[in-house]
Amino acid sequence: MKVSIVGVTGYSGLELVRLLNNHKNAEIVSVHASKDIGSALSEIYPYLKGICDLEISAFDSQQIMQKADLVFLAAPSGVAKNLAEDFVEAGFPVIDLSGDHRLPASLYEKWYQKTAPAKETLAQFTYALSEYTDVKGKKFIANPGCYATAVELALIPLLKAKAIDLDSVIVDAKSGLTGAGKALSASSHFVNVHDNYVTYKLNRHQHIPEIVQELQLFDSGLKHIQFSTSLLPVNRGIMATCYVRLRQPLSQDAIRDLYQSCYADKFFVRIQKELPELHSVIGSNFTDIGFAYNPLTNVLTVVSVIDNLLKGAAGQAVQNFNLMFGFDETAGLLTVPSYL
Amino acid sequence: MKVSIVGVTGYSGLELVRLLNNHKNAEIVSVHASKDIGSALSEIYPYLKGICDLEISAFDSQQIMQKADLVFLAAPSGVAKNLAEDFVEAGFPVIDLSGDHRLPASLYEKWYQKTAPAKETLAQFTYALSEYTDVKGKKFIANPGCYATAVELALIPLLKAKAIDLDSVIVDAKSGLTGAGKALSASSHFVNVHDNYVTYKLNRHQHIPEIVQELQLFDSGLKHIQFSTSLLPVNRGIMATCYVRLRQPLSQDAIRDLYQSCYADKFFVRIQKELPELHSVIGSNFTDIGFAYNPLTNVLTVVSVIDNLLKGAAGQAVQNFNLMFGFDETAGLLTVPSYL
Amino acid sequence: MKVSIVGVTGYSGLELVRLLNNHKNAEIVSVHASKDIGSALSEIYPYLKGICDLEISAFDSQQIMQKADLVFLAAPSGVAKNLAEDFVEAGFPVIDLSGDHRLPASLYEKWYQKTAPAKETLAQFTYALSEYTDVKGKKFIANPGCYATAVELALIPLLKAKAIDLDSVIVDAKSGLTGAGKALSASSHFVNVHDNYVTYKLNRHQHIPEIVQELQLFDSGLKHIQFSTSLLPVNRGIMATCYVRLRQPLSQDAIRDLYQSCYADKFFVRIQKELPELHSVIGSNFTDIGFAYNPLTNVLTVVSVIDNLLKGAAGQAVQNFNLMFGFDETAGLLTVPSYL
Amino acid sequence: MKVSIVGVTGYSGLELVRLLNNHKNAEIVSVHASKDIGSALSEIYPYLKGICDLEISAFDSQQIMQKADLVFLAAPSGVAKNLAEDFVEAGFPVIDLSGDHRLPASLYEKWYQKTAPAKETLAQFTYALSEYTDVKGKKFIANPGCYATAVELALIPLLKAKAIDLDSVIVDAKSGLTGAGKALSASSHFVNVHDNYVTYKLNRHQHIPEIVQELQLFDSGLKHIQFSTSLLPVNRGIMATCYVRLRQPLSQDAIRDLYQSCYADKFFVRIQKELPELHSVIGSNFTDIGFAYNPLTNVLTVVSVIDNLLKGAAGQAVQNFNLMFGFDETAGLLTVPSYL
Repeated sequence: MKVSIVGVTGYSGLELVRLLNNHKNAEIVSVHASKDIGSALSEIYPYLKGICDLEISAFDSQQIMQKADLVFLAAPSGVAKNLAEDFVEAGFPVIDLSGDHRLPASLYEKWYQKTAPAKETLAQFTYALSEYTDVKGKKFIANPGCYATAVELALIPLLKAKAIDLDSVIVDAKSGLTGAGKALSASSHFVNVHDNYVTYKLNRHQHIPEIVQELQLFDSGLKHIQFSTSLLPVNRGIMATCYVRLRQPLSQDAIRDLYQSCYADKFFVRIQKELPELHSVIGSNFTDIGFAYNPLTNVLTVVSVIDNLLKGAAGQAVQNFNLMFGFDETAGLLTVPSYL
Repeated sequence: MKVSIVGVTGYSGLELVRLLNNHKNAEIVSVHASKDIGSALSEIYPYLKGICDLEISAFDSQQIMQKADLVFLAAPSGVAKNLAEDFVEAGFPVIDLSGDHRLPASLYEKWYQKTAPAKETLAQFTYALSEYTDVKGKKFIANPGCYATAVELALIPLLKAKAIDLDSVIVDAKSGLTGAGKALSASSHFVNVHDNYVTYKLNRHQHIPEIVQELQLFDSGLKHIQFSTSLLPVNRGIMATCYVRLRQPLSQDAIRDLYQSCYADKFFVRIQKELPELHSVIGSNFTDIGFAYNPLTNVLTVVSVIDNLLKGAAGQAVQNFNLMFGFDETAGLLTVPSYL
Repeated sequence: MKVSIVGVTGYSGLELVRLLNNHKNAEIVSVHASKDIGSALSEIYPYLKGICDLEISAFDSQQIMQKADLVFLAAPSGVAKNLAEDFVEAGFPVIDLSGDHRLPASLYEKWYQKTAPAKETLAQFTYALSEYTDVKGKKFIANPGCYATAVELALIPLLKAKAIDLDSVIVDAKSGLTGAGKALSASSHFVNVHDNYVTYKLNRHQHIPEIVQELQLFDSGLKHIQFSTSLLPVNRGIMATCYVRLRQPLSQDAIRDLYQSCYADKFFVRIQKELPELHSVIGSNFTDIGFAYNPLTNVLTVVSVIDNLLKGAAGQAVQNFNLMFGFDETAGLLTVPSYL
Repeated sequence: MKVSIVGVTGYSGLELVRLLNNHKNAEIVSVHASKDIGSALSEIYPYLKGICDLEISAFDSQQIMQKADLVFLAAPSGVAKNLAEDFVEAGFPVIDLSGDHRLPASLYEKWYQKTAPAKETLAQFTYALSEYTDVKGKKFIANPGCYATAVELALIPLLKAKAIDLDSVIVDAKSGLTGAGKALSASSHFVNVHDNYVTYKLNRHQHIPEIVQELQLFDSGLKHIQFSTSLLPVNRGIMATCYVRLRQPLSQDAIRDLYQSCYADKFFVRIQKELPELHSVIGSNFTDIGFAYNPLTNVLTVVSVIDNLLKGAAGQAVQNFNLMFGFDETAGLLTVPSYL
């Protein structure tokens, strides 16, 4: 299949190039950005020399629809919705990595502080957490957010099993800096990030409604989560540390069974014996999950880790691409965590 | 006053040298270690050349008592208790930075997996969280643990005000690597720490009973806390992120008043308007505290940050030293956070 | 082809697992180490779960020769030479990533301070810098050192062109910590590496004779190089900054031509317009080279960068493997630099 | 003495606050910036709460001359020269940390690509490398650049001793990111710096003429140096690795004597037995120097390290301040390297 990437010079766009370059069922036929039009991608990003020497084009929906069979939108939230319109109208497949098509209009406007896409457009998009959503034959995919992916995969098994107090969910999530995008700001200046740890958007992060919405599919009784996000002085990786109270005590084995029953046939989710660390997954599309129950406090701690640019963005987008078209789920995604 | 430092080549010992070198009321008269005996400290640690060129001596309690007026024990837990014996017997002042004299024997043996000091010895030590303990005239100080300091200073005001559900305390604490000491292990190898974030000793950290014991002084109804510790890929700094449920909703101002009433006259605790970050305090003896209440979940998030080697170890030891002898509380401790 | 990896739990061994796992012409049939015998590799290294679940075996040359067609020796220098003996005697193919078979006995003993392998054994090994050595049909490969690879690829074109003063070569090389291996030492403790930059083994690094020996193949007049090595606070990556004086001034274009003529058909060496940075190559088998000439000083600065674990170790080993057996040179090595 | 700081919110300005806050002979009476006028400095930089709560003022030369006895200009190059004019005209003491008054007009305009200050103004400024320049009674100080300081202190002793070939100087210098200032750019974005090492401004760095000019004071025969600068993924610290050829071989002891004879009575320059590392000096005003001679290549490698914000900027400015007015040279500067 021929694919185009819009927003190729953002972090998710560049990751899509890496993944699709080694994908047996996909060929990148055009890459689009708002700057450096006419230059080879590898001229602006010399690390891609000999790998992707395509010329950067301006966005042109008609041209994309002529050349390609599907478009990945790796543009920022607030921009992607406008870019998506022509494709949706024409029934041309879209995988949108932004937050623009994940929430109903009212929630989107509240949490993103931007005008929402038209309701008819939103209605056509499917929020696709690869392990739980059937996307076969779907045309318009809203790819999940990075934090949301880590949290949802950690908590859904507990909700499915009715194992926890629904008002007890507290998530302390941490991310590397690529999660914040390449925009320049004091908060992404090296000096302010290095040797630091900064909590931001407490109680205000736009992934909160996304997570709640997805979790409610598994237990509508869940109303809120307590959610904090912090910046780790690393480039890649998210750890979501989730604290929940159990309705009744469970053994470590019982908890493991509960997770295994959800993920036994899911290649990209691994239940680990020990708590996973960032190194467990960086450079791969895996989500690793571990946990420990404390009978004294009745708190179960669940830790999930992902590479925010892979399972948290471009990797899951390719996974959804594979599932939409019936390709091998792992095509283009068999990179081993770099670990070192 | 003349002081000796035992365990000078550990991280806390080296920090004591830095602080006491600039202390108007203290003079370091001897430094002791178990290795490199006979070498100048500055020969082993060239960064101290011209600053502290004292010769490293073997430990000798009699010699210390002849030369000095007080001894700082910066030896590891399990070692310090043996070194302390002679001094306690002789009534010679000791500030012990290890965990050996903080807990009653039974708790010590359970959480440290070591034989406890004699009960009579333990009884003579005062656990001294500088802002809450009156150490004037005391002779034997058990200096608090690093995580314990950050958590206790964050939570005591809430307990004093009876503001929180006592079974709701969840602490997600993170520390830089100096907190783990200089012992060589796979978990402190650069390659395993860098670009990583690792949760360890979940539900098993030895600071748990220390924190509970201290908090119970302010509300004996508190029985347990849920406590996790993780390693940040930085050298210095602890952030304790504390999640508690309020007995009844409080405004941001009311919470601020509650903290200000505890710390208005405490130079080294600062209540900040925004959530503090590690950079706020690294290189100083400050504890910075910030908070935010979420009415949807009824969870108050309190964030406290310290430099684990200063307020979390050597700094608080010097602060206790100052308070014991009526020196200016800030003597030797007026370093400004390095921030950059 | 069936391959065994000896020393699988070292950094180079783990990288071989990553690469060979995705290699269409190779199958890993056994992995060997001196510890954790009998455990699954993925039990000790959970990041490999589902990727390489082979059991770790003790080293057994007979068993390897029965099961496999080639063995990768990823054991430390000083160990590999002993492990190699049986294979060499039996004429069984070996790719040795250690330094044991790169130098003549006398130089080896001088620079490594270890007893050299037998001369007859040494004579059978081919030092194989992939871009310059014809290994087709060779059986025993001494894979180059990491620093040596970066320096040799940067300087050979200049020597071939007789472009430089032979006594003017000064190399300031920097490496990430994986280059130092996983042995525990104060110099690899996180606290000592982080926020630091440390120059080590000045004038004593064992890659000096290896580099000189290889460069002499292209101009025997070169006798010595000035070579320094330092540790960067990163996990992966080497930059070799080479300063040489030109025999006569050359334009930037002329220098480029000189490099292009050497590497035009070498996929894994890229001549870049700007000076390359570590990010240009990390996660890939590429060597990127850039340069700038200063007419005021008559000094040409050449900068080459590699991922020390890939082109500097496991990657070049796989490249040599491919070339030995006539596979596609890039098989298993098409990973794109991670860049972010 | 009463001092004002202009450009207080830049990195050097903030460091001046840290140092002067603990200076027994200085009192900060006003701080000036171009943003956040009217806010307390500690409101914008909460880490300064309780340390420096002065209000940020707009720049006003008259007001400064009324309130203060001296002004530190910590504004960027190109801005400082304009701010300095009124003070120079009025004969009011200035210590300028920028590059604006270090070079003759023609060199300034060539290397800075900015219009130079008037020649009469330039003539009044003294370039003051504290260890070599007599500033007693001087009024207008051009404080040296960070790289320049590290290189000059390393090389002057060799020039004074006529020990080296004057056309052989090659300097490979590395700096942490604070050296690049707080301006936002892709090159200072965390993601681009972390895990990277980037060489920049090769043969074009504006400290080249400054270094040559100063070195020529000690041997006018020196015409050029080969100089490269790279960014280390750390916040603070410069290492200058200098390669020079000796006119005739010297023993390690002879070289040491040569350095000791220059620096025996200079508190802030330490000749170390081993090559120094960044940790040796970070957080202090020290310059540590080490060296090793290679008889095979006749190259002497000299390594000097400084904290670029202290000895490389604010620290040397305070040192010059002390020397100008006859205060203890170490006043405000006795901080011990943080090391950990």
